[in-house]
Amino acid sequence: MKRTAGVEIERLIQLLAKLPGLGPRSARRAALYLIKNREKLLSPLSLAMADAQDKVTVCSTCGNVDTIDPCTICSDPRRDRTILCVVEEVGDLWALERAGAWTGLYHVLGGTLSAMEGIRPEDLAINHLIERAAVSGMREVVLATNATVEGQTTAHYITERLKGLGLSTSKLAHGVPVGGELDYLDEGTLTAAMRARRPF
Amino acid sequence: MKRTAGVEIERLIQLLAKLPGLGPRSARRAALYLIKNREKLLSPLSLAMADAQDKVTVCSTCGNVDTIDPCTICSDPRRDRTILCVVEEVGDLWALERAGAWTGLYHVLGGTLSAMEGIRPEDLAINHLIERAAVSGMREVVLATNATVEGQTTAHYITERLKGLGLSTSKLAHGVPVGGELDYLDEGTLTAAMRARRPF
Repeated sequence: MKRTAGVEIERLIQLLAKLPGLGPRSARRAALYLIKNREKLLSPLSLAMADAQDKVTVCSTCGNVDTIDPCTICSDPRRDRTILCVVEEVGDLWALERAGAWTGLYHVLGGTLSAMEGIRPEDLAINHLIERAAVSGMREVVLATNATVEGQTTAHYITERLKGLGLSTSKLAHGVPVGGELDYLDEGTLTAAMRARRPF
Repeated sequence: MKRTAGVEIERLIQLLAKLPGLGPRSARRAALYLIKNREKLLSPLSLAMADAQDKVTVCSTCGNVDTIDPCTICSDPRRDRTILCVVEEVGDLWALERAGAWTGLYHVLGGTLSAMEGIRPEDLAINHLIERAAVSGMREVVLATNATVEGQTTAHYITERLKGLGLSTSKLAHGVPVGGELDYLDEGTLTAAMRARRPF
Protein backbone atom coordinates (compact mmCIF):
# COMPACT_ATOMS: atom_id res chain seq x y z
CA MET A 1 0.00 0.00 0.00
CA LYS A 2 1.17 3.48 -0.84
CA ARG A 3 2.16 5.45 2.20
CA THR A 4 -0.36 8.23 2.64
CA ALA A 5 -0.03 8.93 6.32
CA GLY A 6 2.45 8.45 9.16
CA VAL A 7 3.77 4.99 10.03
CA GLU A 8 1.93 5.28 13.35
CA ILE A 9 -1.42 5.39 11.54
CA GLU A 10 -0.45 2.54 9.20
CA ARG A 11 0.53 0.46 12.20
CA LEU A 12 -2.76 1.19 13.95
CA ILE A 13 -4.65 0.12 10.82
CA GLN A 14 -2.61 -3.07 10.49
CA LEU A 15 -3.25 -4.07 14.10
CA LEU A 16 -6.97 -3.24 13.96
CA ALA A 17 -7.24 -5.39 10.82
CA LYS A 18 -6.19 -8.40 12.91
CA LEU A 19 -9.33 -8.19 15.03
CA PRO A 20 -12.01 -10.72 14.13
CA GLY A 21 -14.77 -8.98 12.21
CA LEU A 22 -12.55 -6.21 10.85
CA GLY A 23 -10.89 -6.47 7.42
CA PRO A 24 -8.39 -4.06 5.88
CA ARG A 25 -11.12 -1.69 4.69
CA SER A 26 -13.08 -1.58 7.94
CA ALA A 27 -9.82 -1.29 9.90
CA ARG A 28 -9.05 1.92 7.99
CA ARG A 29 -12.53 3.22 8.74
CA ALA A 30 -12.12 2.27 12.39
CA ALA A 31 -8.70 3.99 12.57
CA LEU A 32 -10.07 7.19 11.05
CA TYR A 33 -13.04 7.07 13.40
CA LEU A 34 -10.69 6.64 16.37
CA ILE A 35 -8.55 9.57 15.24
CA LYS A 36 -11.60 11.75 14.70
CA ASN A 37 -12.90 10.85 18.16
CA ARG A 38 -9.62 11.12 19.96
CA GLU A 39 -10.91 12.28 23.31
CA LYS A 40 -14.14 10.35 23.34
CA LEU A 41 -12.93 6.99 22.04
CA LEU A 42 -9.23 6.65 21.17
CA SER A 43 -7.99 7.73 24.56
CA PRO A 44 -10.47 5.67 26.67
CA LEU A 45 -10.01 2.60 24.47
CA SER A 46 -6.24 2.84 24.71
CA LEU A 47 -6.55 3.03 28.50
CA ALA A 48 -9.09 0.20 28.66
CA MET A 49 -6.71 -2.00 26.69
CA ALA A 50 -3.76 -1.21 28.93
CA ASP A 51 -6.01 -1.88 31.90
CA ALA A 52 -7.19 -5.22 30.50
CA GLN A 53 -3.61 -6.15 29.76
CA ASP A 54 -2.58 -5.49 33.35
CA LYS A 55 -5.54 -6.99 35.11
CA VAL A 56 -7.16 -9.71 33.05
CA THR A 57 -6.27 -13.22 34.08
CA VAL A 58 -7.52 -16.73 33.40
CA CYS A 59 -9.48 -18.37 36.22
CA SER A 60 -7.37 -21.27 37.48
CA THR A 61 -10.54 -23.14 38.38
CA CYS A 62 -12.77 -22.92 35.30
CA GLY A 63 -10.73 -21.19 32.57
CA ASN A 64 -13.00 -18.11 32.33
CA VAL A 65 -11.22 -14.80 31.78
CA ASP A 66 -11.74 -12.24 34.51
CA THR A 67 -9.84 -9.79 36.67
CA ILE A 68 -10.08 -11.99 39.74
CA ASP A 69 -9.00 -15.60 40.28
CA PRO A 70 -11.17 -17.56 41.08
CA CYS A 71 -13.43 -15.69 38.65
CA THR A 72 -16.68 -13.86 39.42
CA ILE A 73 -18.71 -16.99 38.67
CA CYS A 74 -16.54 -19.47 40.57
CA SER A 75 -16.49 -17.22 43.63
CA ASP A 76 -20.22 -16.46 43.57
CA PRO A 77 -21.79 -18.26 46.57
CA ARG A 78 -25.19 -18.34 44.84
CA ARG A 79 -23.97 -20.68 42.08
CA ASP A 80 -24.86 -24.34 42.38
CA ARG A 81 -21.55 -26.15 42.95
CA THR A 82 -22.98 -29.60 42.25
CA ILE A 83 -23.56 -29.09 38.53
CA LEU A 84 -20.88 -28.35 35.97
CA CYS A 85 -21.26 -27.15 32.37
CA VAL A 86 -18.40 -27.94 29.98
CA VAL A 87 -17.82 -25.52 27.09
CA GLU A 88 -15.18 -25.24 24.39
CA GLU A 89 -14.31 -21.57 24.72
CA VAL A 90 -14.84 -18.60 27.02
CA GLY A 91 -17.16 -17.05 24.42
CA ASP A 92 -19.52 -20.02 24.85
CA LEU A 93 -19.54 -19.48 28.61
CA TRP A 94 -20.39 -15.81 28.10
CA ALA A 95 -23.18 -16.73 25.68
CA LEU A 96 -24.79 -19.08 28.23
CA GLU A 97 -24.44 -16.41 30.93
CA ARG A 98 -26.06 -13.78 28.74
CA ALA A 99 -28.95 -16.16 28.22
CA GLY A 100 -29.14 -16.72 31.98
CA ALA A 101 -29.30 -20.37 30.99
CA TRP A 102 -27.16 -21.87 33.74
CA THR A 103 -26.92 -21.50 37.50
CA GLY A 104 -24.06 -23.94 38.11
CA LEU A 105 -20.34 -23.71 37.49
CA TYR A 106 -18.46 -23.93 34.18
CA HIS A 107 -15.40 -25.61 32.80
CA VAL A 108 -13.68 -24.21 29.71
CA LEU A 109 -11.84 -26.85 27.68
CA GLY A 110 -9.91 -24.42 25.50
CA GLY A 111 -10.87 -26.12 22.24
CA THR A 112 -11.83 -29.54 20.92
CA LEU A 113 -9.99 -32.75 20.21
CA SER A 114 -8.79 -32.80 16.62
CA ALA A 115 -6.74 -35.50 14.92
CA MET A 116 -6.34 -33.15 11.94
CA GLU A 117 -4.82 -30.36 14.02
CA GLY A 118 -3.06 -32.74 16.40
CA ILE A 119 -5.01 -31.60 19.46
CA ARG A 120 -4.91 -34.39 22.07
CA PRO A 121 -6.74 -34.74 25.41
CA GLU A 122 -3.67 -33.47 27.27
CA ASP A 123 -3.78 -30.26 25.19
CA LEU A 124 -7.21 -29.43 26.63
CA ALA A 125 -8.29 -28.90 30.24
CA ILE A 126 -9.74 -32.43 30.40
CA ASN A 127 -7.68 -33.92 33.26
CA HIS A 128 -8.56 -30.90 35.34
CA LEU A 129 -12.23 -31.41 34.45
CA ILE A 130 -12.12 -35.04 35.64
CA GLU A 131 -10.60 -33.86 38.93
CA ARG A 132 -13.32 -31.25 39.38
CA ALA A 133 -16.06 -33.73 38.47
CA ALA A 134 -14.71 -36.25 40.99
CA VAL A 135 -15.19 -33.85 43.92
CA SER A 136 -17.74 -35.23 46.37
CA GLY A 137 -21.25 -33.82 45.94
CA MET A 138 -20.96 -33.30 42.17
CA ARG A 139 -24.20 -34.45 40.56
CA GLU A 140 -24.23 -33.62 36.87
CA VAL A 141 -21.93 -32.61 34.03
CA VAL A 142 -23.54 -30.95 30.98
CA LEU A 143 -21.44 -31.27 27.84
CA ALA A 144 -22.25 -28.00 26.06
CA THR A 145 -19.65 -28.34 23.33
CA ASN A 146 -20.64 -27.16 19.86
CA ALA A 147 -22.90 -29.28 17.69
CA THR A 148 -20.00 -29.94 15.31
CA VAL A 149 -18.17 -33.21 14.63
CA GLU A 150 -15.22 -32.04 16.76
CA GLY A 151 -17.45 -30.78 19.56
CA GLN A 152 -19.46 -33.99 19.71
CA THR A 153 -16.36 -36.21 19.48
CA THR A 154 -14.87 -34.30 22.40
CA ALA A 155 -18.10 -34.61 24.40
CA HIS A 156 -18.18 -38.34 23.72
CA TYR A 157 -14.56 -38.76 24.82
CA ILE A 158 -15.26 -36.87 28.05
CA THR A 159 -18.40 -38.89 28.92
CA GLU A 160 -16.28 -42.04 28.58
CA ARG A 161 -13.69 -40.59 30.95
CA LEU A 162 -16.42 -39.59 33.43
CA LYS A 163 -17.88 -43.10 33.64
CA GLY A 164 -17.50 -44.66 37.06
CA LEU A 165 -17.73 -41.35 38.91
CA GLY A 166 -21.42 -41.89 39.53
CA LEU A 167 -22.43 -38.63 37.83
CA SER A 168 -25.18 -38.01 35.33
CA THR A 169 -23.98 -36.52 32.07
CA SER A 170 -26.15 -34.65 29.60
CA LYS A 171 -25.92 -32.56 26.46
CA LEU A 172 -27.82 -29.59 25.06
CA ALA A 173 -31.06 -30.35 23.22
CA HIS A 174 -31.18 -30.02 19.47
CA GLY A 175 -34.18 -28.31 17.94
CA VAL A 176 -35.61 -25.36 16.10
CA PRO A 177 -33.98 -22.11 17.29
CA VAL A 178 -36.49 -19.79 18.97
CA GLY A 179 -37.77 -17.49 16.23
CA GLY A 180 -36.24 -19.74 13.58
CA GLU A 181 -38.03 -20.51 10.33
CA LEU A 182 -38.24 -24.16 9.34
CA ASP A 183 -37.59 -23.30 5.72
CA TYR A 184 -34.07 -22.13 6.55
CA LEU A 185 -33.04 -25.00 8.82
CA ASP A 186 -30.88 -27.92 7.81
CA GLU A 187 -32.34 -31.41 7.71
CA GLY A 188 -30.33 -32.65 10.70
CA THR A 189 -31.86 -30.00 12.94
CA LEU A 190 -35.36 -30.62 11.65
CA THR A 191 -35.04 -34.38 12.14
CA ALA A 192 -33.72 -33.86 15.68
CA ALA A 193 -36.52 -31.40 16.47
CA MET A 194 -39.13 -33.83 15.17
CA ARG A 195 -37.71 -36.75 17.14
CA ALA A 196 -37.67 -34.69 20.32
CA ARG A 197 -41.18 -33.31 19.76
CA ARG A 198 -43.18 -32.61 22.91
CA PRO A 199 -46.92 -32.68 23.65
CA PHE A 200 -48.62 -29.31 23.19
CA MET B 1 -26.34 -7.52 30.59
CA LYS B 2 -25.47 -9.88 33.40
CA ARG B 3 -22.02 -9.37 34.78
CA THR B 4 -19.89 -12.38 33.87
CA ALA B 5 -16.43 -10.90 34.02
CA GLY B 6 -14.55 -7.97 35.51
CA VAL B 7 -15.66 -4.41 34.88
CA GLU B 8 -12.42 -3.85 32.96
CA ILE B 9 -13.49 -6.42 30.37
CA GLU B 10 -17.03 -5.04 30.17
CA ARG B 11 -15.61 -1.58 29.58
CA LEU B 12 -13.30 -2.85 26.83
CA ILE B 13 -16.26 -4.52 25.12
CA GLN B 14 -18.40 -1.38 25.41
CA LEU B 15 -15.70 0.79 23.86
CA LEU B 16 -14.91 -1.68 21.07
CA ALA B 17 -18.64 -1.79 20.23
CA LYS B 18 -18.45 1.93 19.37
CA LEU B 19 -16.08 1.28 16.45
CA PRO B 20 -17.74 1.36 13.04
CA GLY B 21 -18.16 -2.19 11.79
CA LEU B 22 -18.31 -3.76 15.25
CA GLY B 23 -21.59 -4.42 17.05
CA PRO B 24 -22.07 -5.71 20.60
CA ARG B 25 -21.58 -9.33 19.56
CA SER B 26 -18.47 -8.79 17.45
CA ALA B 27 -17.07 -6.46 20.12
CA ARG B 28 -17.24 -9.34 22.59
CA ARG B 29 -15.50 -11.62 20.14
CA ALA B 30 -12.86 -8.96 19.53
CA ALA B 31 -12.32 -8.44 23.26
CA LEU B 32 -11.88 -12.17 23.85
CA TYR B 33 -9.53 -12.39 20.89
CA LEU B 34 -7.49 -9.49 22.28
CA ILE B 35 -7.31 -11.12 25.72
CA LYS B 36 -6.29 -14.44 24.21
CA ASN B 37 -3.58 -12.75 22.17
CA ARG B 38 -2.35 -10.47 24.89
CA GLU B 39 1.29 -10.33 23.85
CA LYS B 40 0.78 -10.45 20.10
CA LEU B 41 -2.14 -8.08 19.73
CA LEU B 42 -3.56 -6.46 22.88
CA SER B 43 -0.26 -4.99 23.99
CA PRO B 44 0.87 -3.69 20.54
CA LEU B 45 -2.59 -2.30 19.78
CA SER B 46 -2.77 -0.52 23.12
CA LEU B 47 0.64 1.02 22.41
CA ALA B 48 -0.28 1.92 18.81
CA MET B 49 -3.38 3.73 20.07
CA ALA B 50 -1.44 5.65 22.69
CA ASP B 51 1.11 6.49 19.99
CA ALA B 52 -1.57 7.66 17.56
CA GLN B 53 -3.15 9.73 20.28
CA ASP B 54 0.14 11.48 20.99
CA LYS B 55 1.33 11.98 17.46
CA VAL B 56 -1.55 12.19 15.02
CA THR B 57 -2.44 15.66 13.89
CA VAL B 58 -4.54 17.28 11.18
CA CYS B 59 -2.61 18.83 8.28
CA SER B 60 -3.16 22.58 8.48
CA THR B 61 -2.84 22.79 4.70
CA CYS B 62 -5.10 20.07 3.32
CA GLY B 63 -6.92 18.53 6.31
CA ASN B 64 -5.37 15.06 5.94
CA VAL B 65 -4.51 13.28 9.19
CA ASP B 66 -0.85 12.45 9.64
CA THR B 67 1.93 12.62 12.17
CA ILE B 68 3.58 15.57 10.47
CA ASP B 69 2.19 18.97 9.51
CA PRO B 70 2.24 19.72 6.59
CA CYS B 71 1.32 16.06 5.91
CA THR B 72 3.30 13.50 3.91
CA ILE B 73 1.44 14.41 0.72
CA CYS B 74 1.62 18.20 1.08
CA SER B 75 5.35 18.01 1.84
CA ASP B 76 6.18 15.59 -0.99
CA PRO B 77 8.16 17.54 -3.64
CA ARG B 78 7.06 15.10 -6.35
CA ARG B 79 3.39 16.08 -6.07
CA ASP B 80 2.03 18.43 -8.72
CA ARG B 81 1.23 21.65 -6.86
CA THR B 82 -0.81 23.13 -9.71
CA ILE B 83 -3.73 20.71 -9.42
CA LEU B 84 -5.99 20.27 -6.42
CA CYS B 85 -8.50 17.54 -5.65
CA VAL B 86 -11.34 18.40 -3.26
CA VAL B 87 -12.79 15.56 -1.17
CA GLU B 88 -15.36 15.39 1.62
CA GLU B 89 -13.46 13.31 4.14
CA VAL B 90 -9.98 11.97 4.86
CA GLY B 91 -11.19 8.47 3.98
CA ASP B 92 -11.89 9.65 0.42
CA LEU B 93 -8.36 11.03 0.15
CA TRP B 94 -6.95 7.70 1.33
CA ALA B 95 -9.12 5.82 -1.19
CA LEU B 96 -7.80 7.95 -4.09
CA GLU B 97 -4.23 7.47 -2.84
CA ARG B 98 -4.64 3.70 -2.63
CA ALA B 99 -5.84 3.75 -6.22
CA GLY B 100 -2.81 5.85 -7.18
CA ALA B 101 -5.40 7.94 -9.00
CA TRP B 102 -4.02 11.40 -8.28
CA THR B 103 -0.59 13.03 -8.38
CA GLY B 104 -1.60 16.51 -7.25
CA LEU B 105 -2.55 17.91 -3.86
CA TYR B 106 -5.77 17.44 -1.90
CA HIS B 107 -8.20 19.53 0.08
CA VAL B 108 -10.46 17.91 2.68
CA LEU B 109 -13.73 19.77 3.22
CA GLY B 110 -14.73 17.94 6.37
CA GLY B 111 -18.25 17.19 5.15
CA THR B 112 -20.89 18.54 2.81
CA LEU B 113 -23.29 21.45 2.89
CA SER B 114 -26.60 20.40 4.37
CA ALA B 115 -29.64 22.56 5.03
CA MET B 116 -31.17 19.65 6.93
CA GLU B 117 -28.26 19.35 9.35
CA GLY B 118 -27.54 23.08 9.35
CA ILE B 119 -24.06 22.75 7.83
CA ARG B 120 -23.14 26.04 6.15
CA PRO B 121 -20.14 26.96 3.96
CA GLU B 122 -18.33 28.46 6.95
CA ASP B 123 -18.60 25.09 8.76
CA LEU B 124 -16.49 23.45 6.04
CA ALA B 125 -12.96 24.24 4.87
CA ILE B 126 -14.29 26.16 1.86
CA ASN B 127 -12.79 29.62 2.50
CA HIS B 128 -9.42 27.98 2.96
CA LEU B 129 -9.94 26.10 -0.31
CA ILE B 130 -10.63 29.34 -2.18
CA GLU B 131 -7.40 30.81 -0.76
CA ARG B 132 -5.41 27.76 -1.84
CA ALA B 133 -7.00 27.77 -5.30
CA ALA B 134 -6.17 31.47 -5.76
CA VAL B 135 -2.42 30.86 -5.38
CA SER B 136 -0.61 31.76 -8.60
CA GLY B 137 0.17 28.79 -10.83
CA MET B 138 -2.90 26.78 -9.80
CA ARG B 139 -4.42 25.24 -12.93
CA GLU B 140 -7.23 22.88 -12.03
CA VAL B 141 -9.54 21.95 -9.18
CA VAL B 142 -11.21 18.50 -9.30
CA LEU B 143 -14.37 18.29 -7.23
CA ALA B 144 -14.26 14.67 -6.04
CA THR B 145 -17.16 14.92 -3.61
CA ASN B 146 -19.48 11.93 -3.38
CA ALA B 147 -22.08 11.32 -6.09
CA THR B 148 -24.85 12.11 -3.60
CA VAL B 149 -27.22 15.08 -3.58
CA GLU B 150 -25.22 16.72 -0.76
CA GLY B 151 -21.88 16.01 -2.43
CA GLN B 152 -23.00 17.41 -5.76
CA THR B 153 -24.68 20.45 -4.19
CA THR B 154 -21.43 21.19 -2.36
CA ALA B 155 -19.41 20.75 -5.55
CA HIS B 156 -21.74 23.10 -7.39
CA TYR B 157 -21.47 25.74 -4.67
CA ILE B 158 -17.67 25.53 -4.77
CA THR B 159 -17.44 25.85 -8.56
CA GLU B 160 -19.52 29.03 -8.27
CA ARG B 161 -17.12 30.39 -5.67
CA LEU B 162 -14.11 29.47 -7.85
CA LYS B 163 -15.40 31.38 -10.87
CA GLY B 164 -13.22 34.32 -11.79
CA LEU B 165 -9.99 32.70 -10.60
CA GLY B 166 -9.20 31.53 -14.15
CA LEU B 167 -9.01 27.87 -13.13
CA SER B 168 -10.52 24.88 -14.81
CA THR B 169 -12.83 22.83 -12.61
CA SER B 170 -13.80 19.21 -13.19
CA LYS B 171 -15.56 16.32 -11.51
CA LEU B 172 -15.13 12.57 -11.48
CA ALA B 173 -16.65 10.62 -14.38
CA HIS B 174 -19.75 8.55 -13.80
CA GLY B 175 -19.88 5.09 -15.29
CA VAL B 176 -19.88 1.37 -14.81
CA PRO B 177 -17.50 0.37 -11.97
CA VAL B 178 -14.60 -1.77 -13.21
CA GLY B 179 -15.71 -5.37 -12.76
CA GLY B 180 -19.29 -4.19 -12.21
CA GLU B 181 -22.25 -6.10 -13.61
CA LEU B 182 -24.82 -4.04 -15.47
CA ASP B 183 -27.65 -6.04 -13.95
CA TYR B 184 -26.81 -4.74 -10.49
CA LEU B 185 -26.36 -1.07 -11.39
CA ASP B 186 -28.90 1.64 -10.84
CA GLU B 187 -30.48 3.41 -13.78
CA GLY B 188 -28.74 6.72 -13.14
CA THR B 189 -25.32 5.11 -13.43
CA LEU B 190 -26.29 3.20 -16.56
CA THR B 191 -27.70 6.32 -18.22
CA ALA B 192 -24.53 8.27 -17.33
CA ALA B 193 -22.31 5.46 -18.63
CA MET B 194 -24.24 5.29 -21.87
CA ARG B 195 -24.13 9.06 -22.42
CA ALA B 196 -20.38 9.11 -21.79
CA ARG B 197 -19.74 6.08 -24.04
CA ARG B 198 -16.43 6.04 -25.85
CA PRO B 199 -15.30 4.56 -29.19
CA PHE B 200 -13.88 1.02 -28.89
